[in-house]
Amino acid sequence: MSELVDRAGVPRATIKFYLREGLLTPGVGPTPDAPTAAADYTEDHLERVQLIRALTGASLPIGRIRTVLDALDATSETLYPAMGRALRALPPYLDESDEPLRALRILQRSGQTVDGPAARQLEHALRAADAAGVPLSDDDVVNYARAVRVIAEGEWARVAEQGDPRSAVRFAVLGTVLYEPVIAALRRLAHQDLARADSLDSTPDTTSENPTTDSSDT
Amino acid sequence: MSELVDRAGVPRATIKFYLREGLLTPGVGPTPDAPTAAADYTEDHLERVQLIRALTGASLPIGRIRTVLDALDATSETLYPAMGRALRALPPYLDESDEPLRALRILQRSGQTVDGPAARQLEHALRAADAAGVPLSDDDVVNYARAVRVIAEGEWARVAEQGDPRSAVRFAVLGTVLYEPVIAALRRLAHQDLARADSLDSTPDTTSENPTTDSSDT
Repeated sequence: MSELVDRAGVPRATIKFYLREGLLTPGVGPTPDAPTAAADYTEDHLERVQLIRALTGASLPIGRIRTVLDALDATSETLYPAMGRALRALPPYLDESDEPLRALRILQRSGQTVDGPAARQLEHALRAADAAGVPLSDDDVVNYARAVRVIAEGEWARVAEQGDPRSAVRFAVLGTVLYEPVIAALRRLAHQDLARADSLDSTPDTTSENPTTDSSDT
Repeated sequence: MSELVDRAGVPRATIKFYLREGLLTPGVGPTPDAPTAAADYTEDHLERVQLIRALTGASLPIGRIRTVLDALDATSETLYPAMGRALRALPPYLDESDEPLRALRILQRSGQTVDGPAARQLEHALRAADAAGVPLSDDDVVNYARAVRVIAEGEWARVAEQGDPRSAVRFAVLGTVLYEPVIAALRRLAHQDLARADSLDSTPDTTSENPTTDSSDT
């Protein structure tokens, strides 16, 4: 267990908590043959601890983490249903009562036949934009979908490179949780870079066009 | 105020809370000339209520909302610094102590000279992926940056279409908060669509290759 603590960079108490919650299976041994041997933790344990850490870091409650782990453990399943089951356990957790009618209409236009929690997530996001007075048109969303598809296809190629379905599901779930913030950060950085380029371009002009510039001290 | 409640779709108590917190300026009137007139709320008030709702919906605490609103109100500022100030108030709220060395190196490779909170956000996201055992190489991130740039440029064209700097900052901030979930949802949908296409392609083969399929009932 000491080695697991070191390699995973996780406190011993945390690992004991995972064991108590049944998220992590106990190490092998001590056995009746060798009752004083230390429990033996494998690469699988290390991988599992890293996975649980990533999911708690993404604010998943314990019950949802269990669902994701169960989906990953169901090695008999093919990729698609196992992935669907795991992704359903990821935030955001939205009300399931409404049919995501607009999202489904737009997805159909984009040639996608997918349903499920991500469609509701899209519907919810579109409504929030409407309510805030910055609505997206169907065309806007289709354009987004096209650009996002390029990103997803690049990622999907990496999922497909994983040897077995279990590694593929693991990679897909972790990628969803952990690469989403990478994409969000890069988008903000690109915006800032574009804003900066614009401000450099326009600096010589704005003072004459906008006499209130630098009035913040007055 | 009744009209504002109706049009914004926000409870009266919420609007009173915004007024008390100073997030919303009181309606014009009653004046000494017309002491019994109802306070008059304008389109600006409606817009402001929608904005505050969007920010609370994105889990911003009141203090941070005030910072965003202040940045939006500073109409004397040009777009770039106002946007930077507003974006710094958006989540995630990360420790500022570490230099985001890897993020800055990658951004430099992408030809971006931006610093600030989004660079730290990127650094944090890359570290989380490393820790979970699904690291991204610098090349991976540069590829992400390239694809995300396409999305950001499309959005930036819309920011630039806004008439005045104030509308542009408003659009940029709301777009960051409200379109991020749209992009996240579309990415998950694209993944599911790709997984589904793969599973349809491979269904006839997998049963022979993987004898454990459908063993979940045993």
